[in-house]
Amino acid sequence: MQKKVLEVCLSPAMYSKHADSEIVVVVIDILRATSAICTALANGASEIIPVDTVEEARKRKMEGSLVAAERDGFVLDFADFGNSPFNFTPERVKNKSIVYSTTNGTGIINMSSECNKVLIGSYLNFSALASWLINQERDVLIFCAGWKERISLEDTICAGAFATKLINSGEFTTICDSAIASMDLWDMAKDDLNGYIEKAAQRSRLRDKGLDDCIEFCHTFDFTDVIPVLKDGKLIPLSELRY
Amino acid sequence: MQKKVLEVCLSPAMYSKHADSEIVVVVIDILRATSAICTALANGASEIIPVDTVEEARKRKMEGSLVAAERDGFVLDFADFGNSPFNFTPERVKNKSIVYSTTNGTGIINMSSECNKVLIGSYLNFSALASWLINQERDVLIFCAGWKERISLEDTICAGAFATKLINSGEFTTICDSAIASMDLWDMAKDDLNGYIEKAAQRSRLRDKGLDDCIEFCHTFDFTDVIPVLKDGKLIPLSELRY
Repeated sequence: MQKKVLEVCLSPAMYSKHADSEIVVVVIDILRATSAICTALANGASEIIPVDTVEEARKRKMEGSLVAAERDGFVLDFADFGNSPFNFTPERVKNKSIVYSTTNGTGIINMSSECNKVLIGSYLNFSALASWLINQERDVLIFCAGWKERISLEDTICAGAFATKLINSGEFTTICDSAIASMDLWDMAKDDLNGYIEKAAQRSRLRDKGLDDCIEFCHTFDFTDVIPVLKDGKLIPLSELRY
Repeated sequence: MQKKVLEVCLSPAMYSKHADSEIVVVVIDILRATSAICTALANGASEIIPVDTVEEARKRKMEGSLVAAERDGFVLDFADFGNSPFNFTPERVKNKSIVYSTTNGTGIINMSSECNKVLIGSYLNFSALASWLINQERDVLIFCAGWKERISLEDTICAGAFATKLINSGEFTTICDSAIASMDLWDMAKDDLNGYIEKAAQRSRLRDKGLDDCIEFCHTFDFTDVIPVLKDGKLIPLSELRY
């Protein structure tokens, strides 16, 4: 049987070279957008609506939506709350629709919407998502949000964790140097993930702003089995997807 | 004393986020453009003129220039020779001006021409170039050519070698995740560089075309002390640069 092809894209600046309408894309923004989205759906949010711009988020707020929005780690003044996964508590989000806009992550979710399927990945839903990817039939791109079109270490490492799991399953092959690099970095980081992430620029940015309380949580495996999928501009649990 | 800032750019697709007219840029395209350029100047070529397009290379050939030009590893039919460093022998290149066009490397040399200085880096001139960078006063960007706007493993590893040398000198600091990733990958690769490079996609591409005879040479440290620098659209030895 022919193996599925795995690629890794380490920055949105390189996405056009990987884009393909036939593939499944897994978007990763560990600190903190995709960790927060997984948490929100795990805690019972009915849907997350990713919007790219501050203007769109503000408009939705004025129309009455519940809005989570941040730029560079700071909550926007009109928003109900920001980007920490700890904000998306069951009390706040259960059965709610949430409009969501972040510095990097939400933009690339919409950027990849032309692909066959856009899924949200993080450590928090790692095993459930990896198993689903292994058992489906399409080629897969792990798409890292990075930081303002640069590479971010924490997304690269998580991409390497997914890539290693998929390649080791025997169902995938790769000739993508970004996949190979990310797998080698994962191999270096995996025995002390939180220690390794100390080196990441985003780790320092969050510490400087007092926003680093969630970092250990964002590097916790398998908090949930939920796999968020993009459907008609909204992120919903894959288990609820109807074609 | 304030340390100089080091950054690494792993693909031309991300270059705009690193571009700065005040910095020194080191262009790396190990397999094979920058290895070939260092070899050519070491073997006595008077200058290398990088041109971006096949059309420009063809026009220069018709005007009587000596032309080295390839795309995807293959010599263009009108060119005198291609991209292997072994083509740039003293017999062919001594005291000659050579027009040069390659798939990835020559385009990014011209892309970075707005910076304070554009230097050509490879393992072949590693120690001479690293020493020069450590002893000058400007911030430095290591700029990897990659492969068609994707990341290439062999350029990433060499960027990591330069980054490690510069950081270890105590003269540089970095908060660039691409620099950190490349240094960790270099640390993983350095004890068996040719073995590690077996994983690179470009390694396979060159093997498939029978063009892999130069790979070990391209990973040889300190073949030469020459540091090619871009001056008025031409690459000449830094030692001959007059302001």
